[in-house]
Amino acid sequence: MFEKLQSDIHYAFNDAGLLATAMTHSSWANEQQEHVEHNERLEFLGDAVLELCVSEELFARFPGAREGDLTRMRARLVSKPALAELARDLQLELYLRLGRGEESQGGRERSSLLSDALEAMLGAVFLDGGYERARHVVRHVLAARWPSDADGKRSKDYKSRLQELTQGLFRERPVYVLMGSSGPEHEKRFEVRLTLPDDTVFTAIGPSVKRAEQMAAGLALKKLESRSEG
Amino acid sequence: MFEKLQSDIHYAFNDAGLLATAMTHSSWANEQQEHVEHNERLEFLGDAVLELCVSEELFARFPGAREGDLTRMRARLVSKPALAELARDLQLELYLRLGRGEESQGGRERSSLLSDALEAMLGAVFLDGGYERARHVVRHVLAARWPSDADGKRSKDYKSRLQELTQGLFRERPVYVLMGSSGPEHEKRFEVRLTLPDDTVFTAIGPSVKRAEQMAAGLALKKLESRSEG
Repeated sequence: MFEKLQSDIHYAFNDAGLLATAMTHSSWANEQQEHVEHNERLEFLGDAVLELCVSEELFARFPGAREGDLTRMRARLVSKPALAELARDLQLELYLRLGRGEESQGGRERSSLLSDALEAMLGAVFLDGGYERARHVVRHVLAARWPSDADGKRSKDYKSRLQELTQGLFRERPVYVLMGSSGPEHEKRFEVRLTLPDDTVFTAIGPSVKRAEQMAAGLALKKLESRSEG
Repeated sequence: MFEKLQSDIHYAFNDAGLLATAMTHSSWANEQQEHVEHNERLEFLGDAVLELCVSEELFARFPGAREGDLTRMRARLVSKPALAELARDLQLELYLRLGRGEESQGGRERSSLLSDALEAMLGAVFLDGGYERARHVVRHVLAARWPSDADGKRSKDYKSRLQELTQGLFRERPVYVLMGSSGPEHEKRFEVRLTLPDDTVFTAIGPSVKRAEQMAAGLALKKLESRSEG
């Protein structure tokens, strides 16, 4: 059942019945003689699954982004229109089980119904396979939709942006030096000093060398950008 | 660092620096000479961690609850005032790092600041130990706050409620009979017939015997309750 859909989302269900429930609209369930489950409970769960998977991915992709930028990017990715578009890419309308009334009123094409089914499907993957599997599905189905460098420009990693900017301004690269580390093994902190070609110096302390470099680059960028604005 | 807090939440950090960041308000970070991370990015992540952990728990605790009931219970559990209360129970105000201005204006007692720190702390657990560990922390810190039978009365499991009701009405128990199963091994469906002491019959089909019984009990309850209202 639903072989193509399972292959499209790169996930094979242990209990494909969960996927069937995710595709079952309440209007269909209400028309049956027996009590059949519909997708509203799964949608409740899937909504939260999607939110965390997207949050985790954005958090990792944009190490320099502030909370406000991350929140804005997340809101765009999980908006109802965006989800309905994803649902249409996966052709969820082919799998939906709808009641007669809903069907005759064109429910199969309705965005809200499609985005609900998509969320329910993610809830089903989560129940069936756990968080990590749901995360893989989300990463895969959203693969073409993660914010690009252009969208996330202000959020692009600081070191790359600083390098472009200093090359442009000075025809030279910034220099990072590890000054030392402190603290016990399990909570070590690293201090990095960044020197720009004009000898301006920035210092940052972080939980890893990479992170401290990013933070120092962020400080330098802020300074250079405020100069070029002034 | 933060030994008592780690013991209170039943989680020992691999990198306790993450917990320190969770307790760092932007006002403190902004006063430092070096770039120091504050807790806003972790709060972004933790908000979504909390949402999924609470959703999963409610989904499992109230198998008979509808989406609307679950959403209402979740909203109450993750509301800012509820989170601030939790944060006070954990005495997060003792750990917060605040800037001088914020401190002098009583920021340490401000609910919004405390609930943000709690969310950031959950984001830190998630980054440090993964989803399952974060879920354990949430279950533990919310242990006394999950909706009780009284709060979730309409959502309490259907079989128990039906049994109480039929005992009260007929001095007898409902009878469940497994009628059969269908479908291939990995998506088997079970049909259960429920007979009330007055010989009314209800049938349900579900992904497990337990679930089919719950669904049949739900149908019977609806019928009995509508009778007693009429």
